[in-house]
Amino acid sequence: MSDTLTRLEGTIAERMTASPEESYVAKLQGKGTAKIAQKVGEEATEVVIAAMTGVSEELVSESADLIFHLLVLLQAQGVSFDDVLAELDKREGLSGLDEKASRSE
Amino acid sequence: MSDTLTRLEGTIAERMTASPEESYVAKLQGKGTAKIAQKVGEEATEVVIAAMTGVSEELVSESADLIFHLLVLLQAQGVSFDDVLAELDKREGLSGLDEKASRSE
Amino acid sequence: MSDTLTRLEGTIAERMTASPEESYVAKLQGKGTAKIAQKVGEEATEVVIAAMTGVSEELVSESADLIFHLLVLLQAQGVSFDDVLAELDKREGLSGLDEKASRSE
Amino acid sequence: MSDTLTRLEGTIAERMTASPEESYVAKLQGKGTAKIAQKVGEEATEVVIAAMTGVSEELVSESADLIFHLLVLLQAQGVSFDDVLAELDKREGLSGLDEKASRSE
Repeated sequence: MSDTLTRLEGTIAERMTASPEESYVAKLQGKGTAKIAQKVGEEATEVVIAAMTGVSEELVSESADLIFHLLVLLQAQGVSFDDVLAELDKREGLSGLDEKASRSE
Repeated sequence: MSDTLTRLEGTIAERMTASPEESYVAKLQGKGTAKIAQKVGEEATEVVIAAMTGVSEELVSESADLIFHLLVLLQAQGVSFDDVLAELDKREGLSGLDEKASRSE
Repeated sequence: MSDTLTRLEGTIAERMTASPEESYVAKLQGKGTAKIAQKVGEEATEVVIAAMTGVSEELVSESADLIFHLLVLLQAQGVSFDDVLAELDKREGLSGLDEKASRSE
Repeated sequence: MSDTLTRLEGTIAERMTASPEESYVAKLQGKGTAKIAQKVGEEATEVVIAAMTGVSEELVSESADLIFHLLVLLQAQGVSFDDVLAELDKREGLSGLDEKASRSE
């Protein structure tokens, strides 16, 4: 499972500095944080709609889009995906009850 | 990297059937797809805001929340995260140019 | 203030049945509820980003986009904007304290 | 139609400076722009979900929530709702075709 995201993060890092004519990632990066964040918001809405529609293929496809653009956003902000995973690891150590308590709505 | 998400997916699967009093995941699952999708939308907005604010710690924390709730949504819809990764793998085989062409805005 | 939204709602209603080649509203309507709802989600994200950026002109422009697409969505679902205003009227009758109590997060 | 939103905008302006213990608006205002923007994003997601569910009462209720929080956000940013209406008026002068051309996706 991990290999995919590790590799994808590396690919995104490479493409960041490519020519915008050649790479979607470079083109997006050139537009700045607001535009990348906008894509994350859009893809999340598409995930919501796919879930409400209940078509698994669409949910898979939109979830892939969401994760892809989240990785681009993290990269553009100089944040490693490993930090996000470390955060998830930290929380996972919590039991169900603790977990609940640690979440303030 | 992979271990975290594989384990998290397993933990979520277990908690789905726990008592809602004991587990946040079970409680969320009991509220149905619309409520879980709503959480994904909310967390995505928090990611957008964290990116615009430019505070890395918040971006890490909100990204973790987003991925966590995305995994809950996938699980609730009977979709494996492996399918999402397979979709990302498939796209990553594409070159930068092909990748661009394969994305219709 | 009211005239604008009343007129806009009427214009949208007319354009709904126009040719998709001639009208953006008709084209959007032809794509169905999911696509219109997607636009509402997108425009809301743009409002969020404009607010975080703090540029008033962008906030005005994105808010106009959001309201426009919300009106299209309501029309597509057969809901009158008057019903939304009636709901706001009803809530406004509530005092500050009642108002707070009437909102469950 | 107009009266409702004019009055609501005035009510929000008043409550902005009330005690946070007494007014939801004042409490939200005290939390700052990011939190108000977050509410706009959340309510938009709820509108999307209500539209996908197809229950008119929910769409009315969530649309009212969205407009309410949009008005709070505008107020917090010192933007008059009249400016948003003026922007909508300006666009409405455009014909269907012009309108389409004026929108870049």
